[in-house]
Amino acid sequence: MTGYQNHKDDILRRLRRVEGQVRGLQRMVSEDTYCINVLTQVSATNAALQSCALALLDEHLNCCVTEAIGKGGGEAREKVTEASAAIARLVRS
Amino acid sequence: MTGYQNHKDDILRRLRRVEGQVRGLQRMVSEDTYCINVLTQVSATNAALQSCALALLDEHLNCCVTEAIGKGGGEAREKVTEASAAIARLVRS
Amino acid sequence: MTGYQNHKDDILRRLRRVEGQVRGLQRMVSEDTYCINVLTQVSATNAALQSCALALLDEHLNCCVTEAIGKGGGEAREKVTEASAAIARLVRS
Amino acid sequence: MTGYQNHKDDILRRLRRVEGQVRGLQRMVSEDTYCINVLTQVSATNAALQSCALALLDEHLNCCVTEAIGKGGGEAREKVTEASAAIARLVRS
Repeated sequence: MTGYQNHKDDILRRLRRVEGQVRGLQRMVSEDTYCINVLTQVSATNAALQSCALALLDEHLNCCVTEAIGKGGGEAREKVTEASAAIARLVRS
Repeated sequence: MTGYQNHKDDILRRLRRVEGQVRGLQRMVSEDTYCINVLTQVSATNAALQSCALALLDEHLNCCVTEAIGKGGGEAREKVTEASAAIARLVRS
Repeated sequence: MTGYQNHKDDILRRLRRVEGQVRGLQRMVSEDTYCINVLTQVSATNAALQSCALALLDEHLNCCVTEAIGKGGGEAREKVTEASAAIARLVRS
Repeated sequence: MTGYQNHKDDILRRLRRVEGQVRGLQRMVSEDTYCINVLTQVSATNAALQSCALALLDEHLNCCVTEAIGKGGGEAREKVTEASAAIARLVRS
């Protein structure tokens, strides 16, 4: 079971948009676009990918983590620790 | 009630260390330390502050959010939304 | 003229790898991969894109900015201001 | 010689403000402020520290790096490589 089950189409749409942005970057480089303009697009792509991650994380907390906590026991703590580690990777990437 | 209640001393110790780092930065600038060395210390300070935030967040999820979910109802969802917004601010800062 | 002229193939290879990672993310979501595993891959993709940006920036400083400074005058200052703005966007994205 | 020589007071003022923010964080934790409010302040402090770093970097590029490039030779390339490494540390911190 995944937390994004009910928003799968939305997540896929966002990821396809990011793919389009990355392909746009390749085109810009192929056509010798000025470095700064390429960098501006890289920043935009990064921001789009991060928004995607934040959406996934919110759904994960609302579904998987919430469910584990509802059941209680050791699994709840484990799920929170796992989520915290994912947040740390995101903050540091 | 706060999530960091049982780790208050640890959080305060970390924050005092960050304060020491920021004061160290002032000393470096006062003594005309080479820019790159100042920047290296700024990066280290930023990383220390971020670790602090990740510790606070982990405790918040383990206590406040877990408690709200345990109680169930609208408050659980509200707490998760609030935590997601804090994570987004952290990722983007 | 672009700063990455002599490393165009390398930049394109990196961007194609990022595209592959983004397509991998779509596959993972289509196949209902566990949220945390998707998030780990998003962090890796973000890091790869950022490395790409840092390589572009280094080449921009070594070519375009260095050339403008060599010529001197107002253009040098302008190029540095432009590069600083790009760095700020990168740091904040 | 430092790049921030002519803006030393401004940099010191910013760093003292960051110190005040970090002390404010300690006060908040001492007074058991709600986790999310502490985290909001951590994000603001991080952003202030990052702005400081971007100002230092801009001055470094405008002074030290520009000067080294003006002189030409191996030192120019060395300074750019050093600046790129500092930017990478900043982006990743």
